Amino acid sequence: MKRKWIVGLITAIMIMAFPVSAFAADEVTAPVLEIGLNTMFVFLAALLVFFMQAGFALLEAGSVRMKNAGHVAGKTVLTLGISVIAFWAAGFAFGFGNGNSFWGTTGFLFSGDSAAGSFASLAASDVSLNVKFLFQLSFAAVSLAIACGGMAERAKLSVYIIFGTLFMILIYPVVAHWVWGGGWLGSLGMQDYAGSTVVHLTGATAALAATFLLKPRLGKYNKEGKPNVIQGHNQVLTVLGVIIIWIGWFGFNPGSALTPLADGFFGYVALTTNIAAAAGAIAALFISWVFAGKSDIPSMLNGVLAAFVAITGSCAFVDAWAAVVIGAVAGIIGFLSGKWLERAGLDDPISAVSVHGIAGVWGAVSTGLFATPELVAATGVGKPGLFYGGGFDQLGVQILGVAGTFAFVLVASFLVLAGMKWLIGIRVTEEEEMMGLDISEHGSYGYPEQMQAIAGDTGKEPALTRSTSELGSISVIK
Amino acid sequence: MKRKWIVGLITAIMIMAFPVSAFAADEVTAPVLEIGLNTMFVFLAALLVFFMQAGFALLEAGSVRMKNAGHVAGKTVLTLGISVIAFWAAGFAFGFGNGNSFWGTTGFLFSGDSAAGSFASLAASDVSLNVKFLFQLSFAAVSLAIACGGMAERAKLSVYIIFGTLFMILIYPVVAHWVWGGGWLGSLGMQDYAGSTVVHLTGATAALAATFLLKPRLGKYNKEGKPNVIQGHNQVLTVLGVIIIWIGWFGFNPGSALTPLADGFFGYVALTTNIAAAAGAIAALFISWVFAGKSDIPSMLNGVLAAFVAITGSCAFVDAWAAVVIGAVAGIIGFLSGKWLERAGLDDPISAVSVHGIAGVWGAVSTGLFATPELVAATGVGKPGLFYGGGFDQLGVQILGVAGTFAFVLVASFLVLAGMKWLIGIRVTEEEEMMGLDISEHGSYGYPEQMQAIAGDTGKEPALTRSTSELGSISVIK
Amino acid sequence: MKRKWIVGLITAIMIMAFPVSAFAADEVTAPVLEIGLNTMFVFLAALLVFFMQAGFALLEAGSVRMKNAGHVAGKTVLTLGISVIAFWAAGFAFGFGNGNSFWGTTGFLFSGDSAAGSFASLAASDVSLNVKFLFQLSFAAVSLAIACGGMAERAKLSVYIIFGTLFMILIYPVVAHWVWGGGWLGSLGMQDYAGSTVVHLTGATAALAATFLLKPRLGKYNKEGKPNVIQGHNQVLTVLGVIIIWIGWFGFNPGSALTPLADGFFGYVALTTNIAAAAGAIAALFISWVFAGKSDIPSMLNGVLAAFVAITGSCAFVDAWAAVVIGAVAGIIGFLSGKWLERAGLDDPISAVSVHGIAGVWGAVSTGLFATPELVAATGVGKPGLFYGGGFDQLGVQILGVAGTFAFVLVASFLVLAGMKWLIGIRVTEEEEMMGLDISEHGSYGYPEQMQAIAGDTGKEPALTRSTSELGSISVIK
Repeated sequence: MKRKWIVGLITAIMIMAFPVSAFAADEVTAPVLEIGLNTMFVFLAALLVFFMQAGFALLEAGSVRMKNAGHVAGKTVLTLGISVIAFWAAGFAFGFGNGNSFWGTTGFLFSGDSAAGSFASLAASDVSLNVKFLFQLSFAAVSLAIACGGMAERAKLSVYIIFGTLFMILIYPVVAHWVWGGGWLGSLGMQDYAGSTVVHLTGATAALAATFLLKPRLGKYNKEGKPNVIQGHNQVLTVLGVIIIWIGWFGFNPGSALTPLADGFFGYVALTTNIAAAAGAIAALFISWVFAGKSDIPSMLNGVLAAFVAITGSCAFVDAWAAVVIGAVAGIIGFLSGKWLERAGLDDPISAVSVHGIAGVWGAVSTGLFATPELVAATGVGKPGLFYGGGFDQLGVQILGVAGTFAFVLVASFLVLAGMKWLIGIRVTEEEEMMGLDISEHGSYGYPEQMQAIAGDTGKEPALTRSTSELGSISVIK
Repeated sequence: MKRKWIVGLITAIMIMAFPVSAFAADEVTAPVLEIGLNTMFVFLAALLVFFMQAGFALLEAGSVRMKNAGHVAGKTVLTLGISVIAFWAAGFAFGFGNGNSFWGTTGFLFSGDSAAGSFASLAASDVSLNVKFLFQLSFAAVSLAIACGGMAERAKLSVYIIFGTLFMILIYPVVAHWVWGGGWLGSLGMQDYAGSTVVHLTGATAALAATFLLKPRLGKYNKEGKPNVIQGHNQVLTVLGVIIIWIGWFGFNPGSALTPLADGFFGYVALTTNIAAAAGAIAALFISWVFAGKSDIPSMLNGVLAAFVAITGSCAFVDAWAAVVIGAVAGIIGFLSGKWLERAGLDDPISAVSVHGIAGVWGAVSTGLFATPELVAATGVGKPGLFYGGGFDQLGVQILGVAGTFAFVLVASFLVLAGMKWLIGIRVTEEEEMMGLDISEHGSYGYPEQMQAIAGDTGKEPALTRSTSELGSISVIK
Repeated sequence: MKRKWIVGLITAIMIMAFPVSAFAADEVTAPVLEIGLNTMFVFLAALLVFFMQAGFALLEAGSVRMKNAGHVAGKTVLTLGISVIAFWAAGFAFGFGNGNSFWGTTGFLFSGDSAAGSFASLAASDVSLNVKFLFQLSFAAVSLAIACGGMAERAKLSVYIIFGTLFMILIYPVVAHWVWGGGWLGSLGMQDYAGSTVVHLTGATAALAATFLLKPRLGKYNKEGKPNVIQGHNQVLTVLGVIIIWIGWFGFNPGSALTPLADGFFGYVALTTNIAAAAGAIAALFISWVFAGKSDIPSMLNGVLAAFVAITGSCAFVDAWAAVVIGAVAGIIGFLSGKWLERAGLDDPISAVSVHGIAGVWGAVSTGLFATPELVAATGVGKPGLFYGGGFDQLGVQILGVAGTFAFVLVASFLVLAGMKWLIGIRVTEEEEMMGLDISEHGSYGYPEQMQAIAGDTGKEPALTRSTSELGSISVIK
C-alpha cells in the first residue's frame, strides 16, 4: 500500500518533470511563449497599421482629380520610404529613446533588439524591440499620411520629401515622446490610448499649417469667395481605402494593448472601436442628408474616419454605449466642422483638419468625460471622466495635452514650411497645377489613356508627348 | 545515498516549482497562454472575414455599370455600419444568446466579456467573448453583403438601410441560432462547418426574394424576353475583390476551428478550402469555354466563389481529393444554374443566387455524401456521408437544414421587402435608374470626370451640375 | 515540525500537479502551445505571401494598356488556381518530398499532416505540415507570377495554362529542392533566406526565356530599333499593388523564420527587409530623376521591388546599415539594368528580368559580401561574407547557386516554351494584339464602358458587340 503510494508519487513527479526539463532544454517555458505570443500580436497589429498606408493612398487618390491621381498615389510610397528611413535613423530615438521630458536622446540608427537599453520607455512590454519599432513606425507613418493629405493637388514633390523627413525625425517623435515616450504629458496622466492626439491631431495640425501656407487650389473658390466642390475622381477607390483603413484600425487600437493576454482586453478595445466607427458612418450619412438633401458618400466615409479618430484616444476607457455616442458625435462634428472650415477659406482636399484634427480633439476630450472608474483602474492611466464622478481633473489634462500638441506642431510645421516657401517655394506654378501634378512633377499621367481620351473630347492636347519625349522616347498607347 | 536521493527530489521539486510559481504570480500559465493564443487566432480570422467586405464591395462595384459604381461601393460601407450596430444591439443576442431552439433571448446591447453568461452556446471555446462577437459579426456581415448583391443597380438606398437592419437583427441570427447557437438544426447534428447554409444560403435566399420583388433592371431582357449581357465596368476591381475574398476565406473556414491547436486541424481545413477554390476556378473557366467559346473571366471568378461556398460547409469533413471534386462541381453548377436563372427571368447582377445559393445547397449536400468517418469523429459533428457507409442519415439532416433555412429566409425576406414595397416602394424610378444611382441616391457620380467624358461623347448632358448645385456649390473638374 | 514539512511538500506537489495534470488531460503543455504558436505564425506569413497575388495582379494590370487589363488581372486568378492544384498534386512532392539531391520523389497528391513522413526536409520545424504546404505554395505562386509578368500583352492564354502547370510542377520545385528541400545547393551552404534566388531569380529567368521567345510587343520598338515607352494605364492600381506587395513581404522574409520565438529573430528580419525597401524607393526615385529629369513613379515602384528582391536572400545575415546599402544599390541597378535590357531589345512589360532577376542576383551576391559572423552563427547557414573576413568561400557558393539556378531554369523554360511555340504557337495574332487580349482571349473588355468611350473618340468601332453576340446575347451599357 505504502509502496504503491511512493511509486505513484515518483511517477507523478516524473510526469511533471518531463515537460519541465524539456522546457529547460529548449527554453519553451511559458514566459518564453508569452513573449513570442505578444511579439506576434504586436507584429500583426503593426502590419495592420502599415496596411493603412494603402488605405490612405486610395482615399487620397480617389479624392483628387484624375490629373493628380498618379502623383498622389505615388508620393504615398515615396513618403512611406522616407518615413521608414527617417524614423529608423533618428525619429525612433527622438521619440522613444531615453532622454528628458521633451525628447529622447539615445538609440539613433536603430540596430535591433540589442539597442533595448536605449529605449527604457518601451521596456514595460516584453515584445521584441524590433517589432515595437515597426509598430511605432507604422503609427508615425499614419500621422505623416494625414499631414500630406492637406497638401494634395498643389504642393511640389520636394515639399513631401523635405517636410516629410523633418516631420518623421522631429515633429511627430517629440509629441510621441511627450505622451508615450516618458515625456511630460505621460507623466501628467494623459489618456491617449492609441493616439487621437499623438497621431491624428499631430498630422492634422501639420496639414492645417500646410493648407494655410499653400493657399486653396485654383478654382476652389469663386470670385465671391464661396467654395466650389472639387469632386474626387473615384469613389470606388475611396471606399476601398476606407475599408482598408477600417481593417487597419483593428491593429491601431486593439494592437495598442500590446498583448492578446490580459484577459483579452484588446478584444474590448476592438468592440468599442468598431461600434464607434459604425455609429460614425450612420451619423454622418444622416447629417449629410439633413444638410444637403442627399446622402453623400464621401461625407459618410469621412464620418467613419472621424469616429475612428475620436475613439482612438478613448477606446480603452469608455463603456460600449459611450463608444456609440463618441463615434456618432464625431461623425457629426467632423462633417459640420469640415463645411465650416471650407467656407472659412481652408481648402483641405481630404478634410484632414476636420476629420483628424477636430475629431481628434473631441476624442481627447471625450475620454475626460466618459472614462469609467473600472476601465481607468484596469488600464492604470489617469482618472475617471467628468460624467463618472472624476471631476474636471482628467478633462483638464486632456485639454492641456491637446493645446500643447497643437501649439508645438503648428509652430514647428509653420516654421519648416514657411522657411521652405521663402527659400524654394512650396507650390507648383499655375500652369503646372492646371496641367496636373502627374505631368508636372513626374512627367507622365497616372491614367495616360483615359486622360488622352478626355483631352480628345475637349480638343485640348494632353501633355503626354511632352513627358515621354523628355524620357527620351515616344509614347505608344495603341 | 538516501540523502542524495532526497536532495535530488527536493532539487527537482524546486526546479519544477520555480516556473510554476512564476506562472502563478504573472498568470502566464499554459492555460492562460492557450486562451490568449486562441483569442488571437480567432481575432485574425475575424479580421480576414471582415476584410471580405472590401472584396464584396469591389466584386459588386466592378460588376455594375459606371453610373452605379459609387453607390454600390458606398452602400457597402453603409451596410457594414448598419451591420455592426444592429448585430451589437440585438442580432448577436437573437443568434447566440441563451434561449430556445428557435432564437436567443439574452445578451442584448452586448457589453463585452462580462456578458459571457448570456451566451452559453459559445462557451465551449475559451476565446474572449469580445472576439467571438467580432467573429460572428463578420460572418453575419458577409451574409448581408450577399443579400444586397441581388439588389444592385435598382433598389433604393432606403431598402439597404431598412432591410439591412432587419436582416442583421432577425433573419440571419435566427438561422445562425438554429445551427450554431443551440437551435434545432444543431441538435439534429447538421454539418455546416463554416456556413454554406447559415451564411451563404441565407444571403442568397434573401437575394432571391429581393431580385424577384425588384424585377429585372431596365434593358436586361429584350422584347422576346431573352437576356442581354449587362457587363460590369471594371474586371480589374472584380479580380482584386475575388483575391481579397480568397484571402478572407482563410479566416472563414480555417478560422472556424477557433484554435490553432488541436493538432493544427485548421491547417487541414485551409488545405481543402484552398484546393476546392482552385478547382472551381479551373472548372468554371473550362465550362464557360465549352458553353460560350471563350474563357470568360467573370464566369471563372464566380467559379472560385461557388467552390468556396460549397466547401465552406464540408471543409472539415472530407478528404482532399473530395474537396477538389466538390469545388469543381460547384464551379460548374454555379455557372450552369446562373445561366438557367438568367434565362428564367431572374436578374441577379452578381449571381448571388447561383453562386451562394445553389452552390451553398451543393455544399450542404456534399458533406452528406463525402464526410469520412475519421473526420466526423475528429470534429464530433454528425455522421459519415453516403459514400462512406453512413447511409442517408446525414444526407437527410443536411437536406432538412437546407429546406428549413430556405423556407424561413424566403418567407421572412419576402414579408419584409413586400411590406416595404407596398408602403414606400423599393425601386428607384425609371428616370433615376437610367441616370444611375450615384446621382439619384447620392447626388454625385462615383466617377465624375469619366462620366462627364463619356456623356460628352454621346452628346448627353451629365447630371453633374444638378447634384453639386444641390449641395450648394458648383462643381469644378479642371 | 516534520509533519508540517511533509504537508507542505505534499501541498506543493498538489499545486504543481494540478496544472500539469490539467495539461496532460487537454494537452496544453508548453511544447504543444509552441507548435500552435509557430503554426499560426507561419499561417499568417503564408497568407501575407498569398496576398501578394493581389499585389502582382494590380501591379501587372496597372502596367499594361486598358485593352489588356481584364485579361492580365483575370489570368492571375487562373494561374493561382493552376498553382494550387499543380503544387498540391505534384510540385510540393518534387520540391520538398524525400528524394535525392536533384528532386523529391515522395508525397504526391498531398493528403495533409499524415504525409509528414514523406517530407523529411521540412521536419526541422514543428509547424503543421498543412500550413507548411500553404507557405511553400504561396512562395511558388509568387515565382510564377513573376514569370508571367514578362509575357504580358501578347502571350496566348494557353501559354499561361500549360507553362504555368509545368512551372509549378517541375521548374520551380526543382530549384526549391536544390536549396531548401535537401538538394545540392543547400548542402553546399548556400544562403538564400527567403528566396532571392529560389523564388525571384527563378521567376525572372523564366520571364527572360518567355520574353525572348515571344518577341517584343507591336510598337515597342521603332524602325531604328529604339524603344518606345508603352505606359501602363493606371498608376493608382500599380501603387496599390506595390503597397500590398510591401505588406506581403513581411510574410515572405520574417515569415521564413518559421517561428515568432527564437528571441524574436523574425523581427530583425522585418527590420532589415523594411529599411532596404525604403532605401530602394528613394534610390530609384533619385536615379530616375538624374537619368530622365523627372522623378518617375513606375521607376520608384520598381526600386521598392528590386530592393525587396535583393534583401530577400540576405535579410537574416546582414547588419541594418548593410540592408540600407543593399536596398539602395538594388534600386539603382534595377533601374539601370532595366533601361539597358529595354535598349538591348528585351520587351519586359513589368521589368521582371531586371527587378527580380538582376536584383535577385545582387541579393544572392550581397550576402556573400555582407554576411556577419554573428548572424551566420545565429542562423547556422553558410559562412561570413567577404567584407567580414569570410573570404570568397560564401561568395563562391552564392555565385554557383545563381549560375546553377539560371542555367536550369533558362534551359527548362526555353524547352517548354519553344516546344509550345513549335506545336501550337505562343503569341496571339497581330490583329488580336491590336484588338487587345481582353477581347481576343476572353471575348469582352475588362473596361467595356471606358473602352467604348475611347473607341468613340477615335472613330473606331470597339469589338464589343462581337464578343457579346458570341456569348449569345446583346450588350447593354446604358
